[in-house]
Amino acid sequence: MSVAGNERGRMTSPSLDRSEALWKRAQRVIPGGVYGHQNAGAHGERHPKFLARGEGSRVWDVDGNEYVDWMCAYGPMVLGYRNSVVDRAVAEQMELGDTLSLPGEAMVEYAEALVAKTAGMDWAIFGKNGADVTSWAIDTARAQTGKSKVVKVRNAYHGARPWTIPVLPGVPPHHRDELIEVVWNDVEGLRSVFAEEGDAIACVILTPYDHQLHHAELPSEGWYRAVRSLCDEHDAVFVMDDVRAGFRFDLAGSHVYFNAAPDLVCYSKAIANGYALSAGLGVEALRPAAERIFFTGSFFFQSSAFAAASATLAEMERTDAVGTIHRIGQLLIDGLEAQAESFGEPLVSTGPAAMPSFHFGDDPEYARFKRWCDAATEQGAYLHPGHNWFVSAAHTEEDVDRTLEATERAFEELRSSG
Amino acid sequence: MSVAGNERGRMTSPSLDRSEALWKRAQRVIPGGVYGHQNAGAHGERHPKFLARGEGSRVWDVDGNEYVDWMCAYGPMVLGYRNSVVDRAVAEQMELGDTLSLPGEAMVEYAEALVAKTAGMDWAIFGKNGADVTSWAIDTARAQTGKSKVVKVRNAYHGARPWTIPVLPGVPPHHRDELIEVVWNDVEGLRSVFAEEGDAIACVILTPYDHQLHHAELPSEGWYRAVRSLCDEHDAVFVMDDVRAGFRFDLAGSHVYFNAAPDLVCYSKAIANGYALSAGLGVEALRPAAERIFFTGSFFFQSSAFAAASATLAEMERTDAVGTIHRIGQLLIDGLEAQAESFGEPLVSTGPAAMPSFHFGDDPEYARFKRWCDAATEQGAYLHPGHNWFVSAAHTEEDVDRTLEATERAFEELRSSG
Repeated sequence: MSVAGNERGRMTSPSLDRSEALWKRAQRVIPGGVYGHQNAGAHGERHPKFLARGEGSRVWDVDGNEYVDWMCAYGPMVLGYRNSVVDRAVAEQMELGDTLSLPGEAMVEYAEALVAKTAGMDWAIFGKNGADVTSWAIDTARAQTGKSKVVKVRNAYHGARPWTIPVLPGVPPHHRDELIEVVWNDVEGLRSVFAEEGDAIACVILTPYDHQLHHAELPSEGWYRAVRSLCDEHDAVFVMDDVRAGFRFDLAGSHVYFNAAPDLVCYSKAIANGYALSAGLGVEALRPAAERIFFTGSFFFQSSAFAAASATLAEMERTDAVGTIHRIGQLLIDGLEAQAESFGEPLVSTGPAAMPSFHFGDDPEYARFKRWCDAATEQGAYLHPGHNWFVSAAHTEEDVDRTLEATERAFEELRSSG
Repeated sequence: MSVAGNERGRMTSPSLDRSEALWKRAQRVIPGGVYGHQNAGAHGERHPKFLARGEGSRVWDVDGNEYVDWMCAYGPMVLGYRNSVVDRAVAEQMELGDTLSLPGEAMVEYAEALVAKTAGMDWAIFGKNGADVTSWAIDTARAQTGKSKVVKVRNAYHGARPWTIPVLPGVPPHHRDELIEVVWNDVEGLRSVFAEEGDAIACVILTPYDHQLHHAELPSEGWYRAVRSLCDEHDAVFVMDDVRAGFRFDLAGSHVYFNAAPDLVCYSKAIANGYALSAGLGVEALRPAAERIFFTGSFFFQSSAFAAASATLAEMERTDAVGTIHRIGQLLIDGLEAQAESFGEPLVSTGPAAMPSFHFGDDPEYARFKRWCDAATEQGAYLHPGHNWFVSAAHTEEDVDRTLEATERAFEELRSSG
């Protein structure tokens, strides 16, 4: 039986028996049990592997243990699980219809709202996965420029597709011949890449800041100015991949927050608070190229997702969700830093408040960080050992307090075990 | 004002004013107004461009006009729009959670049910788009064989991705270097392709029968036997792309109905009655290759889609939905053929009952067929002029009768206008 839920949170180890049993069932019928980014098989033995439900900032695993969830479904949850405003908009749309033989008004209404809201963008298209729109952006840039090479930052993730995944078994190596990798913030490196191959470069694709798995790096003073002017000089398209960061920095686009001026913007994850949707937006000059791309999918026109997205945008504006996210995220970072200092642990915080990134110094394989996350998770704060975390507008000061109780026990455990 | 809904269906032209106004709004904020397969801009001026709602086999456009819908959302709708059993299963799941930070039991339960149901398959993975799983199948075949070439049938559609779309502006030509196109049912052609390039062929990907836009061709007697034995002889993977046809022929897979023995099966469209989901299934020997592929997406683990899919599978079995689909589809085909004969029109029917395909003889640009579909649509039977149609288990004899009234007027119009 689980002992979760006493006043100061749990002390003893909760059962993960149902989670483990389900994991065994999954391994029989699914390769690896769970594939992709939600495979928790390597997180640590005290991490649950399946969740049963979510409400606000909290999730419950299949054994009934409650957690403050700092992953937010890896980004999609931004207003809290089961947000009543978003879910009501979806339910009302479902009363009419969802996937029909033609699009509905909900798509056009959302396109109007998103285009009006997004700085510098004149039109929008929609898909289901983030990779649908990042890959579409590459195609659009190639159609626009008649060139094929793609400049991206080393180790930056733009979706699980052959053109971007560093090592994909079976994909012929020349599928990545058009990829040029540069170093984040290395203006001189970018300049020499354009000097050498500018005639072949269709686009530069960047995330708003460099959010790697264990650390983050913000744009330096001249980075985006250089990107913009090099793209202009060499007739290349600047694509902003705002799939992971989008709607956590500025509802007009993370490019506003980080002072960049892209030609195409890609959104997904948070824009519909968990409903499956992605969006690509562009400047007027790229509309003819976009019209030449055959871009579609069986569920691209699902009205429920557009209803969810319209409600998410309006509700985030109404409640200053971004402000809350940054305030709470900063409380969490400050609290953890203070706690680490009191324990003498070399906790390094690199991410912005909305998407914190932590690791320990002198922990090259992240083994100690993983043990700490596993211990904190057992104590009721769901912490990922190998990915940035996410803050939502549903997280509260109480969630931060509850998390700091869990991490205090995790620090104690590190100290006692050496 | 619309005059739809009198006893014999409408006679006079219904208004499409709201549809046209919405189309103008859409063109300002969406490239082309609507992109991809749901763009009805070229269907004919009496076709609506947006739908407001659906119920069972019927849809209503944004002007309130009712139609018998023979497109079924291009396949996803198989038990009727707003099917109460499926939608209740989704609502119950939504009370708990949908997109969370880990998968839920719903994914494992559906994997178990689908694997148990699908003939010859041992495990499953899931995505959102059909192209997610057809592209994943190519990656898996390449990982398994260490080879890269893909054999497909000329003009066969396997999703809007660079490896399969015949003309995609901006995609470097060599992205299609690994593609070898053969002619459907041409055993000798396939044999010589393997004789020449067998050492480089990773897989053959086929739809269960050749469902082109205006016509269909069933597999010939020896086709699938030859495909299987050539794949075996040359260590190539046989991929069945059952995205469009799946769940309309046999719930164990269309490969059972058409007597084929694939190594991988791809599903999407109909498996969750309109909720966004796709599935890839494989034989045991391919599990290690599948485990090596990094395959994921932000919404791949959405529990509502798995709840919908489990309910769709159970409800289709309980109600013999496939039997109903074939019975009603045959009534439609027989009725249209008899009607065409009485009008002396050369209607050619090529598709199986579950997915009818029609065109007129001596109509090389399909112009006459398009006029006929446009006229029938105006009279309340939504007929697509450039794609196969789809039959659902919600379609009734009354729907067929109502459709034949509409097509009778369309035939009359063709006759009077020459």
